[in-house]
Amino acid sequence: MDAVVLMDNLWVIIAGILVLLMQGGFILLEAGSTRMKNAGHIAGKTIFTIGIASLVFWAVGYGFIYGDGNKFIGLSSFFYGDASPADGGLTTSVDFFFQLAFAAIALTIAFGGFAERAKLSAYVIFAVLFSALVYPVVAHWIWGAGWLKDLGKQDFAGSTVVHLTGAMAALAATIVLKPRLGKYGKDGTMNQLSGHNQVYTALGVLILWVGWFGFNAGSTFGVSDGFFGYVALNTQLAAAAGAVAAMIVVRMMTGKADVPTTLNGALAGLVAITASCAFVAPWAAVVIGLVGGIIVYFSMKLFDKAKIDDPIFALSVHGAAGVWGTLSTGFFATPELAERNGGLAGLFYGGGFTQLGVQAIGILSCAAYAFVISYIILKVMKQVMGTIRVTEEEEMIGLDMSEHGSYGYPESFAEAQESSSYKKSASAR
Amino acid sequence: MDAVVLMDNLWVIIAGILVLLMQGGFILLEAGSTRMKNAGHIAGKTIFTIGIASLVFWAVGYGFIYGDGNKFIGLSSFFYGDASPADGGLTTSVDFFFQLAFAAIALTIAFGGFAERAKLSAYVIFAVLFSALVYPVVAHWIWGAGWLKDLGKQDFAGSTVVHLTGAMAALAATIVLKPRLGKYGKDGTMNQLSGHNQVYTALGVLILWVGWFGFNAGSTFGVSDGFFGYVALNTQLAAAAGAVAAMIVVRMMTGKADVPTTLNGALAGLVAITASCAFVAPWAAVVIGLVGGIIVYFSMKLFDKAKIDDPIFALSVHGAAGVWGTLSTGFFATPELAERNGGLAGLFYGGGFTQLGVQAIGILSCAAYAFVISYIILKVMKQVMGTIRVTEEEEMIGLDMSEHGSYGYPESFAEAQESSSYKKSASAR
Amino acid sequence: MDAVVLMDNLWVIIAGILVLLMQGGFILLEAGSTRMKNAGHIAGKTIFTIGIASLVFWAVGYGFIYGDGNKFIGLSSFFYGDASPADGGLTTSVDFFFQLAFAAIALTIAFGGFAERAKLSAYVIFAVLFSALVYPVVAHWIWGAGWLKDLGKQDFAGSTVVHLTGAMAALAATIVLKPRLGKYGKDGTMNQLSGHNQVYTALGVLILWVGWFGFNAGSTFGVSDGFFGYVALNTQLAAAAGAVAAMIVVRMMTGKADVPTTLNGALAGLVAITASCAFVAPWAAVVIGLVGGIIVYFSMKLFDKAKIDDPIFALSVHGAAGVWGTLSTGFFATPELAERNGGLAGLFYGGGFTQLGVQAIGILSCAAYAFVISYIILKVMKQVMGTIRVTEEEEMIGLDMSEHGSYGYPESFAEAQESSSYKKSASAR
Repeated sequence: MDAVVLMDNLWVIIAGILVLLMQGGFILLEAGSTRMKNAGHIAGKTIFTIGIASLVFWAVGYGFIYGDGNKFIGLSSFFYGDASPADGGLTTSVDFFFQLAFAAIALTIAFGGFAERAKLSAYVIFAVLFSALVYPVVAHWIWGAGWLKDLGKQDFAGSTVVHLTGAMAALAATIVLKPRLGKYGKDGTMNQLSGHNQVYTALGVLILWVGWFGFNAGSTFGVSDGFFGYVALNTQLAAAAGAVAAMIVVRMMTGKADVPTTLNGALAGLVAITASCAFVAPWAAVVIGLVGGIIVYFSMKLFDKAKIDDPIFALSVHGAAGVWGTLSTGFFATPELAERNGGLAGLFYGGGFTQLGVQAIGILSCAAYAFVISYIILKVMKQVMGTIRVTEEEEMIGLDMSEHGSYGYPESFAEAQESSSYKKSASAR
Repeated sequence: MDAVVLMDNLWVIIAGILVLLMQGGFILLEAGSTRMKNAGHIAGKTIFTIGIASLVFWAVGYGFIYGDGNKFIGLSSFFYGDASPADGGLTTSVDFFFQLAFAAIALTIAFGGFAERAKLSAYVIFAVLFSALVYPVVAHWIWGAGWLKDLGKQDFAGSTVVHLTGAMAALAATIVLKPRLGKYGKDGTMNQLSGHNQVYTALGVLILWVGWFGFNAGSTFGVSDGFFGYVALNTQLAAAAGAVAAMIVVRMMTGKADVPTTLNGALAGLVAITASCAFVAPWAAVVIGLVGGIIVYFSMKLFDKAKIDDPIFALSVHGAAGVWGTLSTGFFATPELAERNGGLAGLFYGGGFTQLGVQAIGILSCAAYAFVISYIILKVMKQVMGTIRVTEEEEMIGLDMSEHGSYGYPESFAEAQESSSYKKSASAR
Repeated sequence: MDAVVLMDNLWVIIAGILVLLMQGGFILLEAGSTRMKNAGHIAGKTIFTIGIASLVFWAVGYGFIYGDGNKFIGLSSFFYGDASPADGGLTTSVDFFFQLAFAAIALTIAFGGFAERAKLSAYVIFAVLFSALVYPVVAHWIWGAGWLKDLGKQDFAGSTVVHLTGAMAALAATIVLKPRLGKYGKDGTMNQLSGHNQVYTALGVLILWVGWFGFNAGSTFGVSDGFFGYVALNTQLAAAAGAVAAMIVVRMMTGKADVPTTLNGALAGLVAITASCAFVAPWAAVVIGLVGGIIVYFSMKLFDKAKIDDPIFALSVHGAAGVWGTLSTGFFATPELAERNGGLAGLFYGGGFTQLGVQAIGILSCAAYAFVISYIILKVMKQVMGTIRVTEEEEMIGLDMSEHGSYGYPESFAEAQESSSYKKSASAR
């Protein structure tokens, strides 16, 4: 095998490993953003849903995305059979592994909308159905031989395919599951159910940031011209700008530099640049990240006002910023980079409104598909299973205990139990 | 230097870095699986025992494995002197670094059996002796110029060499040290001494999973044909299957999807595929992982019944799954891959029982060597040092305080102390 | 592009990603070394100061270091304009990304001296000024076209440029900010304000250790001869020796194997080998690490005696060990490696005192510059802003609440508040 082709494969496998590392970021981000009584559940479920996503991808996911089929879906190459790599000179296994890692990320994002109230069995069944029916179809449309690819949709590493798709499933889940107990008072008040550990969330964001270089720069599918470096630099600048912008906005609006908002700013910068990293100049990456960081703050406010309870901010970080990121190439794509990576130049480079229109069509169709199918899946699940939400009592005790039979932090709760029993005995005296 | 040879070196150094990252996974897995009062000790000891393992490997370990010698042990190339790389076109330093990282992992696995009761001095001395006398001998037998290599033993990345060897040392330690205080009641009852933080354990497993791509796919020692991608894909599928299988089994047997068991399923899948990743087809990797995930559950039950106190489940995860993984190539090795990577095809591919027999001989001889030598070392240490276990009082207070002079979580214990002194003063009123 | 040049770029981008991962290590190290009430602040500030460092580097940092200019500072290539890579066959974006990651590390080290008492606004402003005026100048002197490069200063990966510069800024901050409340009693006693989580610190050190291979071995700027492997091996041996040495020293001096000291030993080994990793033999790397581990213990004692309150030990780990590491090449540099990587052989290899003198000049001039400019910046900030330190009341409550409006661990503090209100009601009974 040619040395450069080998190097393409080497880079993509390393990038796939980095994408898998992002799951560690999600474990920390999700556990840190939720309450102690659910922490073991939140962290543990990530491990076995990666397992489910991997097995479903092996069985049917890869085939639905990259198999021979039609403009809507692929229909061959199941169970790693007769698969041949979709991307350049990559070997089948390298391409398969890299794509598998992306599929698992989309699922983990979707589960943001399930947090702190869905039954474990709902996770298991939704993992299978989302990984088979939702993600692969959108991925086929844009990255396989689908109709949006024919239209020239630009989505380099998946602002739409991965982030928006995951966020739309999360939105369906928040609607079907309804808000957590105590989140909205009967009188319309909104309560902050603060996440229990900001060190986890900050570290989680840093790990996601690191892994994102696999996500974005790995989507070059190779080392040609060292272009991965350009993509990496854009990614870094957008994340940086997102963090700074969100910190400034939240400080200006509330007087305090809220940590979760700042962290979401960095993530929003990363989500936004995911579509555009290979199409724009570094200065535009800074602008795209800045706008992402501002959008995420107002989006968080908006969803709260709409009483859509989104514990891990999946809708704002992956949804709103995903939409912005996908649109951004319609404004900022340079002619040279559009020629290199597909589609047309953006509005600000004399490309007119054409690409912006294509991007908008892509967003609307993919968002609609992901939302509607996810919603139907969840509604049918609810019908068949009776309920997909734990009981009120279970939710109060926490899902660690109700779904898994032990606390994630047993000593903290032992103390709590002791001191509450102490209180009772004290009052009984 | 030829571009492909340079790339071999580049991949192996990156793989070695990933193997070192696995130590972060072990820090979290071990600390999370044990109690708060020992957390600083458990985490901190990992750092300096990596240090000891590295220095001993530099001094004698590499020489015992790869030096010129006999079928039992190597006897040259000490202190990085006149070392020449054992593996293909790798430079000496790259090979040295990669092998060093493996040696440190074996030691960390062995320390699973020491948890929550061994004296710090026992860690220090055992680290030196295990790294000099136990691990290098087994590694020489299978990977150096040893007698099991001559027999055609298949152990691609070390299900036997690293995992089973570490687990056998852990078994010797659990026997010599005896169970932790309070684990087994005088009336024969078994108490759950739950680990204190499942977010740590879940994140630890994810980091181990990520690092395992260095462990397995790096054991190709190069980029030839892009075969590392095939190994990586098998690794991913086995880990996924292990996690899912263990979750289903524990749910079926107990009604609850116990988090630690599920996590151990992922690890068991990884340990099992470690020997076989370069010998089997992807569907077989799924089967090997599934069986690994089932085995780990029943193994955990078995050791508990036998009153062998194994706080971090090293015996089940690295021992039982290591045995299964080593045997699995005797069933599933394909003729093409056996020809490529050594040994014969497995039973299911018409290879007969020959390879299965070789694998069994390898398991028995290595397990026996690692167990017996570790047992002797610990018994002699006990004799010479008086004891290798902390006192009952020290064990109750925790090893953070007794061995290191401060709590790993000082504020949690300060609170506990305050509230207990408050209770006393309250009752005294 | 030539295959080997592509590989140079690939290795350096991977190395840059590893250097960014080190920020995760710092998040854990800093949060773990400080108290619970400041944990969200400490972790969260790291994310947005990486953002600031990145944007400032993009705007002016790269230009000040590598732009055309004079012996004191570069003066072109701002905002990624007309930048051309300083290092061999690297593309501009790869070189830019790698250098950016280093600049952010220097800033994070500097913030060690701010911990638990500086106002958030002080972080923001100092981040901009340090990243523009302090770090780039020192980096230009040694790595750009500066006067110390002309002198033949050896500092392969930045013991001086990154670690000592960061530590000197931290020293200026500890002096201007003064010690934390309660650290030194009015009667001259010293109180231990223990960090709240040693699992964080141990994991942080492991992640730093892993990332350091990007830092040191990536500073080869390419794959030529596989020399990166040699650098990696030296790095591993020095870190190992540092951890072991510090553990032994603190055990001998105090009777207890203090965990934070042991961890600092590993870091001191890493900092020390950072200058010398490409100049010395493996046995010398062991010696350099051992001495680093011993120095860090006594340095910690010394700063405590001098009542310089350094919560995260930046002065000892990055300062004292950085000085030792920079000097070490003057003793241990071999003739072959000096010829390869610049400068002269060390004293022990017949090179005489010349190189040692150059190293000393480099240390003194860079330390002086970094300290003086940082001190002036902080004094001016204090003058203009009124104060750069939170009020006593804010410091008692913690910076999580005062600067960010919510606790990093809200449930822990809710409990504390409840139980304190319970105590009150109990006493009121």
